[in-house]
Amino acid sequence: MLADLPTPCVTVDADVLDRNLRAMAAHTAGLGLALRPHAKTHKCVEIARRQVELGATGLTVATVSEAEIFADGGLSDLFIAYPVWPSPQRAARLRALADRVALRVGVDSAQSAQALARVLPGLEVLIEVDSGHHRSGVAPEAAGGVAVAAQRAGLSVRGIFTFPGHGYGPGRQKQAADDEAAALEAAAGAVTAEGLEAAVRSGGSTPTAALTGGTLTELRPGVYVFGDAQQLELGTCTWDEIALSVASTVVSRSGQKIILDAGSKVLGADQQVWATGGGRLLDHPDARITALSEHHATVVLPDGAPVPHLGEVLRVVPNHVCATVNLADELIVVSGGTEVDRWPVAARGANT
Amino acid sequence: MLADLPTPCVTVDADVLDRNLRAMAAHTAGLGLALRPHAKTHKCVEIARRQVELGATGLTVATVSEAEIFADGGLSDLFIAYPVWPSPQRAARLRALADRVALRVGVDSAQSAQALARVLPGLEVLIEVDSGHHRSGVAPEAAGGVAVAAQRAGLSVRGIFTFPGHGYGPGRQKQAADDEAAALEAAAGAVTAEGLEAAVRSGGSTPTAALTGGTLTELRPGVYVFGDAQQLELGTCTWDEIALSVASTVVSRSGQKIILDAGSKVLGADQQVWATGGGRLLDHPDARITALSEHHATVVLPDGAPVPHLGEVLRVVPNHVCATVNLADELIVVSGGTEVDRWPVAARGANT
Repeated sequence: MLADLPTPCVTVDADVLDRNLRAMAAHTAGLGLALRPHAKTHKCVEIARRQVELGATGLTVATVSEAEIFADGGLSDLFIAYPVWPSPQRAARLRALADRVALRVGVDSAQSAQALARVLPGLEVLIEVDSGHHRSGVAPEAAGGVAVAAQRAGLSVRGIFTFPGHGYGPGRQKQAADDEAAALEAAAGAVTAEGLEAAVRSGGSTPTAALTGGTLTELRPGVYVFGDAQQLELGTCTWDEIALSVASTVVSRSGQKIILDAGSKVLGADQQVWATGGGRLLDHPDARITALSEHHATVVLPDGAPVPHLGEVLRVVPNHVCATVNLADELIVVSGGTEVDRWPVAARGANT
Repeated sequence: MLADLPTPCVTVDADVLDRNLRAMAAHTAGLGLALRPHAKTHKCVEIARRQVELGATGLTVATVSEAEIFADGGLSDLFIAYPVWPSPQRAARLRALADRVALRVGVDSAQSAQALARVLPGLEVLIEVDSGHHRSGVAPEAAGGVAVAAQRAGLSVRGIFTFPGHGYGPGRQKQAADDEAAALEAAAGAVTAEGLEAAVRSGGSTPTAALTGGTLTELRPGVYVFGDAQQLELGTCTWDEIALSVASTVVSRSGQKIILDAGSKVLGADQQVWATGGGRLLDHPDARITALSEHHATVVLPDGAPVPHLGEVLRVVPNHVCATVNLADELIVVSGGTEVDRWPVAARGANT
């Protein structure tokens, strides 16, 4: 079947995907946590619906346009986990969204809270807290001040959220999960000290999901649906949890080196300093992608290993699956070695 | 005008673009070289047509699907600078293409030459030579053998080509241009020693274009149309040659740090080890993008520099513009601070 595909193209194993979805639903249910998966990973209405069928409270998205697309797809409870700035063109879209779904957005300053309240009074917000990733978000002890400002401006403060993104490094998951729990606990304390409630305490990422504890009420993992080479190399997924791979053809061959037609324009160029290369090969775990250009993956096989032949189709596991999906117009769904469906990547490029 | 855009979005300054197109046309004309720009950078029919109007011989593309899209756009002379493997689904498409445009493809082995000849006898090919980038391509002295195999198989060998991609590094342009010329000269010698002609000796990249010399007959630069942060940091373009930037909004702010809503899903994640960060800011040359996640650019401004305010729209110059364009559905064309057009990125995602 692989040999019939127009390579490079993105394939999803429906059976592995289903196992991954069920496993995370069971994990969060076991912990008594709400599951609000981050849809930025799959950008696909079919998968979002399945997540809700399996018990997800709603979806997390990163942008207003992602929210619009999932609302169009019938998803009715959406959290934009981002410090949304209500520029004029975005303000009208936020109002339209709030009219048709249960909407919640992130906020990390008094000034943006006031701007949001001017365009959409009563909007539900979570205060973003920095738990160690040092991107957006306020220090935990400052969450109370932002919450008060937001409430006074006329927003409805529902709680706090954080992203423990510093867990994306070898051996860093436990520390990041601990930091996440501590930051949310401190921030919740700061909010309640102001006489407000932090009913929602939302955290979570795929690398830290297994270690979640403490004060959390909600988890927002994204990558777990597909897995990727980063998770493999962090030890936070196994090879048999890899649901997405890029079918690609051997187009050149020299000694133990082959060139595949999957480059950064289909895989994405993400490569953390700790990554072993530009991705992994599902059927050749010992091979390494030593270089990636736009339409070439340079793969080196171990000395003595059989070298795939010209024209052979191999499955590449991308480093960062969110980037890969965002480059594809559709996902080719396979089951038992047969193509069973094609799902549009409805929210591809939905950045605004 | 910037403030009215739905950020993040990709904008092109039509006046800078036009200067860049004219400058490269004049440069290659001055050297007596054919110019065959690589359309993988812009993926845009409007720009391709303008390149041909200004004297380009034809276009270079990377994939069969790019060729199909530019053929649909009326471009009639296309070189697929890639070792195309004619899998069954690709073979029929190659035949259809050859029926409607002057088509030429790359080949780097006797086996792929034979496979191509079986599906499209008489197809014009150039032998790919490795001039030091060590991706696909044969050693220069092996070009004669592949040329003979291709001719015997029934292809029409028109010459040789190389990509001096090892010129993408600080101070490496002169060596790469010299390597390119030497490799093409040696390969041309190897081909003529077999009684064949290497009429086309095609090379070139934006970083090495100014240094091109020797035996070349044709140049294939791509990035020069827009420029990008990589070229800025290599010293191979100037700030006033930057034609493309990503309009993005300040969404969070803390001390000298701001967060922009342009992340790797609009800019791309390319970051060479020698890059100073995740891109540059057109209006703040001293700022650095210290981290890039999917929807966040973390920007640090120098101590004491004024910090842009929340909601301000800034222009980000991506590291690698080819990746940025391939993430966008359209380019917003501006001139004199006003939006004048929108061009579809017709070949976005055309990887097959």
